Amino acid sequence: MQGTWATSVGLDLHLELSGARPRAALESALREAVRGGRLVPGTALPSSRVLAADLRLARNTVADAYAQLIAEGWLAARHGSGTWVAERAAQPRPAVAAERPTERQSRYDLRPGTPDVSAFPRSAWLAAGRRALGAAPAGDLAGYPSPQGLPELRAALAEYLARARGVAVTPERVIVTAGFAEGLDLVCQILRARGVRALAVESYGLPEHREIAAVRGLQLDPVPVDSPGAVLSAEVLSSAGAILLTPAHQFPLGMALAPQRRRQAADWAVRTGGLLIEDDYDGEFRYDRQAVGALQALAPEHIIYGGTASKSLAPGLRLGWLVVPAGLVAEITEAKRATVRLSSSLDQLALAEFIASGQYDRQVRRMRTVYRQRRDRLLRALAQEVPDVRLTGIVAGLQALALLPDRLGEDEVVARARKHGLMLKGLADFRAGEQSHPPGLVLGYATPPAHAFTTAIARLCAVLRSAA
Amino acid sequence: MQGTWATSVGLDLHLELSGARPRAALESALREAVRGGRLVPGTALPSSRVLAADLRLARNTVADAYAQLIAEGWLAARHGSGTWVAERAAQPRPAVAAERPTERQSRYDLRPGTPDVSAFPRSAWLAAGRRALGAAPAGDLAGYPSPQGLPELRAALAEYLARARGVAVTPERVIVTAGFAEGLDLVCQILRARGVRALAVESYGLPEHREIAAVRGLQLDPVPVDSPGAVLSAEVLSSAGAILLTPAHQFPLGMALAPQRRRQAADWAVRTGGLLIEDDYDGEFRYDRQAVGALQALAPEHIIYGGTASKSLAPGLRLGWLVVPAGLVAEITEAKRATVRLSSSLDQLALAEFIASGQYDRQVRRMRTVYRQRRDRLLRALAQEVPDVRLTGIVAGLQALALLPDRLGEDEVVARARKHGLMLKGLADFRAGEQSHPPGLVLGYATPPAHAFTTAIARLCAVLRSAA
Repeated sequence: MQGTWATSVGLDLHLELSGARPRAALESALREAVRGGRLVPGTALPSSRVLAADLRLARNTVADAYAQLIAEGWLAARHGSGTWVAERAAQPRPAVAAERPTERQSRYDLRPGTPDVSAFPRSAWLAAGRRALGAAPAGDLAGYPSPQGLPELRAALAEYLARARGVAVTPERVIVTAGFAEGLDLVCQILRARGVRALAVESYGLPEHREIAAVRGLQLDPVPVDSPGAVLSAEVLSSAGAILLTPAHQFPLGMALAPQRRRQAADWAVRTGGLLIEDDYDGEFRYDRQAVGALQALAPEHIIYGGTASKSLAPGLRLGWLVVPAGLVAEITEAKRATVRLSSSLDQLALAEFIASGQYDRQVRRMRTVYRQRRDRLLRALAQEVPDVRLTGIVAGLQALALLPDRLGEDEVVARARKHGLMLKGLADFRAGEQSHPPGLVLGYATPPAHAFTTAIARLCAVLRSAA
Repeated sequence: MQGTWATSVGLDLHLELSGARPRAALESALREAVRGGRLVPGTALPSSRVLAADLRLARNTVADAYAQLIAEGWLAARHGSGTWVAERAAQPRPAVAAERPTERQSRYDLRPGTPDVSAFPRSAWLAAGRRALGAAPAGDLAGYPSPQGLPELRAALAEYLARARGVAVTPERVIVTAGFAEGLDLVCQILRARGVRALAVESYGLPEHREIAAVRGLQLDPVPVDSPGAVLSAEVLSSAGAILLTPAHQFPLGMALAPQRRRQAADWAVRTGGLLIEDDYDGEFRYDRQAVGALQALAPEHIIYGGTASKSLAPGLRLGWLVVPAGLVAEITEAKRATVRLSSSLDQLALAEFIASGQYDRQVRRMRTVYRQRRDRLLRALAQEVPDVRLTGIVAGLQALALLPDRLGEDEVVARARKHGLMLKGLADFRAGEQSHPPGLVLGYATPPAHAFTTAIARLCAVLRSAA
């Protein structure tokens, strides 16, 4: 019993009546007829008896369908006057695609920000999730997660961050977030609520972070960055209510904040009660000596430490963390609770198990070796093939800065590379303030999958070799 | 080689030197000594040669540890002047717990908002996740997820929502969110950016939703609710820029929005260009007749439809969705992109597979039966044991409203129940405006696990029976 049924009253209902659910099919056909304009407002419908006979359905089936569509507002009826198509609010346009075309993901992508996602440890992660889900009580597993994050994950993170990053931390100070960006958003919300007007940011940094602060109503005060890192001048330090820094590996310029600058920053926070936000986005990946410990440990009551699994595991997980001063835990947790910003319990439990079982360390160690080798290959290739391009910011992290000689312009190089199927990002895209850095490329050497890395480097060298 | 080492220069370092990593142990001990105040700023440290001899370590090990701690800002050194403990920003208080004690989750919980999380289909979900992860390309799996949501999930949701809820939808109009709350937050952000100042809300509703709007700077205009639902008076309709409604099952009062009110609301949106937000939080759970279709289908270009997996599966998933007018897709997606608000790819892929494989429908059907039986048991128990308490809002959803007779006050009942280990929620907790409803309890009969339901109902009846 399937096909198009034209009824005796001229209704072309395009009915696809499955035997099991004729009433649902009838309702659906009537909705579509109204939606599509074949039944215009005011049209009288046949009585349920007549339509039932036409469609060889039980009369109650039609009557029930009419009642349902009246309840939904498609049809209208008055006792004794029959049933008609209700005055509709509008004839909606067909629901067409409104999405902007997204840039096709190239296999040859040396833009920064993403690790090699093909190296994500699928089976180890699945196994951790299975173990965690098997063990978890139902409330932990599926109930509304604690806004601060599940205790299992906070405990695992506290142990890891103290050990691997020198963070001064207890589980009570950890707040689980959906990546560093959400953490920053929460802190900006708190800052605004406390009356802070401006956030000092490094003059080069992630535009997304600046946008988060701006959307929350914070003015951005860019501070210059020189070779020992952010220049925390008396002027900036006297006016800013908060500072966002990338001390371990300045993004995107690549230097570590010098020891005396670290102390200066911590001193400022303690002296003025200002808040320092440490974005430790890739602190685990340091190649030539042991990682510099977290700045946060210099003044744990005045510095918020923020980290993420986006570089160490995968951005797709949407998991990050804050370690915050004791006096801010309740405030930030309450902001999360009030606006129901919670992270997936299942992912939290899986990550807790992944860390506690040692898999997280193992993955970081493995990828540190992989990325160091990639960095070395990039260094060698550039030194041999385009010696006038200098690579800096290379002691750590997943990206380095390639300084371009006068013969090359950022935009030209990026455009030329794109023609060769290679995605690059110019340094100017990260600029926030007046300070202008010589032209360069921020090369994310972690991004391509292993099999595409050699070609990506070869294309990069070819593009940089050719004259402008 | 483990234990407390007091050096000849009087440093008590509490060294726990594991054979494998003496340098890390030394660094850690020195950090702790500074952090704990045993080494105060300005203290001169022994030369690396002397300390190495004391600790029976290689001199380079000590020198490297000093260099590391200088880089981290714990120590300071000048050539020829030796090494000393740096001026510290502060002696941090030990990181004590700052979390407010959370209410112990009671097994006897009849507050609304949570499904029976013990019924979460763990193994089916894990299996869906495994299938999805096995099939997904690495970029989908682990890369930064598309801000709009993964195409696989948007396609599955579009198919489901059109079929089960009568939503006018294509995958291009679906935006994946971390639950309805995030969707509302995004919409409020867009409304403010467009200059809308006020959001009309039902005079009873979720305080969290009102708080989300308020944090985004929207004024709240409560509209009364009578038995056919929200009263969309000319006055409200002329001043509001947007309206938030729960048409299928008013939360928490429980009526469905009457057909003529549905048309009125849709007309308003079309006529004025105002935005209507439909919170379809439990639309799948309708017991006594087929679900009322989504209001959104009356004017898909003017109504945002919002749904969630929090009631149908589990709040712990943090997955929800918006279906938005074509003209809003790019704007909302851009707001998500700009502030990096993305949902876990792994969960998205698992849900897509869960829906596409029919497991989602199966779970909803299974739970619909469970919850209907619970509702019927609640109805019977109250009718038999406390006939002066009337239950309304029962045709759908996971909660009902128990209207209290004069002899009972909301606060007294809630307090008395708590003493008996039963968590209840009074209607007044949801009130937004002037309108005052007679006292009642919003009973979430889905919340307790199956084995606790009988006791929860018995305690409820006992508390309601006893005199105030």
